[in-house]
Amino acid sequence: MKAVLGIDWGGTYIKAGVVNYRGKIEKKLTFTSKNLRQKEVFIQELKRLIKELKEFSISGVGIGAPGIVDTKKGFIYYLPNVRGWENYPLGRVLRKELKIPVFIDNDANMFALAESRFGAAKGLSPAICLTLGTGLGGAVVIDGELLNTEISAQELGHVPIALAGQKCACGSRGCIETYTGNKRLLRRYKQLKSTKHKNFDVEYIFQRALKGERAALIVWGEFSFHLGKFLSGMINLFNPKAIILGGGVSGAFKLFKPLVLKTIKENSMWPNLKGLKLLKAKLNNPGIIGSALLVKDKLASV
Amino acid sequence: MKAVLGIDWGGTYIKAGVVNYRGKIEKKLTFTSKNLRQKEVFIQELKRLIKELKEFSISGVGIGAPGIVDTKKGFIYYLPNVRGWENYPLGRVLRKELKIPVFIDNDANMFALAESRFGAAKGLSPAICLTLGTGLGGAVVIDGELLNTEISAQELGHVPIALAGQKCACGSRGCIETYTGNKRLLRRYKQLKSTKHKNFDVEYIFQRALKGERAALIVWGEFSFHLGKFLSGMINLFNPKAIILGGGVSGAFKLFKPLVLKTIKENSMWPNLKGLKLLKAKLNNPGIIGSALLVKDKLASV
Repeated sequence: MKAVLGIDWGGTYIKAGVVNYRGKIEKKLTFTSKNLRQKEVFIQELKRLIKELKEFSISGVGIGAPGIVDTKKGFIYYLPNVRGWENYPLGRVLRKELKIPVFIDNDANMFALAESRFGAAKGLSPAICLTLGTGLGGAVVIDGELLNTEISAQELGHVPIALAGQKCACGSRGCIETYTGNKRLLRRYKQLKSTKHKNFDVEYIFQRALKGERAALIVWGEFSFHLGKFLSGMINLFNPKAIILGGGVSGAFKLFKPLVLKTIKENSMWPNLKGLKLLKAKLNNPGIIGSALLVKDKLASV
Repeated sequence: MKAVLGIDWGGTYIKAGVVNYRGKIEKKLTFTSKNLRQKEVFIQELKRLIKELKEFSISGVGIGAPGIVDTKKGFIYYLPNVRGWENYPLGRVLRKELKIPVFIDNDANMFALAESRFGAAKGLSPAICLTLGTGLGGAVVIDGELLNTEISAQELGHVPIALAGQKCACGSRGCIETYTGNKRLLRRYKQLKSTKHKNFDVEYIFQRALKGERAALIVWGEFSFHLGKFLSGMINLFNPKAIILGGGVSGAFKLFKPLVLKTIKENSMWPNLKGLKLLKAKLNNPGIIGSALLVKDKLASV
């Protein structure tokens, strides 16, 4: 059977899976996630996996990396949350070590690719697919293809929605992800509750809001306004048929959906709203599936 | 000779020209610009032109309209500065009246198409081409093709850079064009000078700034910060090789270029800045040439 290995490389974990040519995961794999900052560990772990997977005749490896990548060369510029990988030619090194084709792109791009081909955005184009978590990642997909970028840009999280605003990890101020990231939500909730209590997460704020708690409702109200304002700009820009929201924060989708839609309607140009769908992401392992699709596409185009 | 008729339809004027297949204007034409709000006048005028141009054997008409258009159907949703054209099937009407192919897109898209093929962005992809005037229009062009949109979206001027901000003609607040439009610059200058003097334009503020006048320098400083902040988001999003600035306000390009670049460098993710060029638009009649290219492309793809 022909299959590819898809790697979803997060800031704090690595998920891997053997994916067949119909986009189904045949086998999920455990990746030792300790010492990810050490390139050697990462490379040796990958070698081990490929050996273990002989039965599958793996035709290539796709990696969704948590940072900025030159997608043509598989060259990593930097990974904001994993130090030690600056300016590293990972693609070249792996191709030599593994002796099979290796392709690297941005993790959020891989999420978007999977959701647009097999997930919530299937058949809907253009689609804007976003993961809402620590940051805001994602990509625009047109007719099933990622918006063409040599560098894995499409850094949607680093589009500003305010002239000043809070300092962002990227060095700028006012980036949308400083408004929608889960740290912001937790901090704002703490502030509103005047509490030093620390044992809560975004899911908790969601549950509190469902129960009608004022502070929690304010947090989600502000979140929705900020996200909606950002999306109105993206709607005016891309005229999408679908906006797909995934990632941890999208657990509160049913709560914030109507609020986000209200801001979108108030701020977008009306012809661009025709038939627009705001949907929750659907796939269980979009990062793995997307990385596999990357390989499939690249090998097909050779 | 095979040629097409390109129409650059602005809010207050219409320019037309016969364009050959190498993108050169063979003949410029005068279009009666009175009563543009009357559809009949527009259509009759176009009929007259086509008759006059028999010698050229016009193979199609391209129109860059100042508003939102369904580019597939040639259907006009609305033109912000020309009333009376809401929901009008101009393409269908013209094809029937003129009996030759007619294609309609957004005027700023046509500017971008021309600048990317024959102007300042030639050979540079992706390119973000902007016209700075009353508003901010433009488009992203990738490998010589407009970013795919069914509706002539790419309303770059209506991406917000502030959560609140001034009310925009589109109904939203904080759109970039409320910060860079010439009315804003004139109003701000007036405010800073505490003058009721009315006889000045953007060119005057440019000249005053060149002479070192404080108020004028502030106007251009603010303009550059706002434009640079917006562009940093677009750079993170599209990873362009070139940003092209045209339109009336770009007359001050040499003054504001270093200021805009400073803000861009401070706010963009560094891998996206590699090799980026900020250039002034180059063509004399990009609207006419772009509209002609639209026809050429569409006829070639049939």
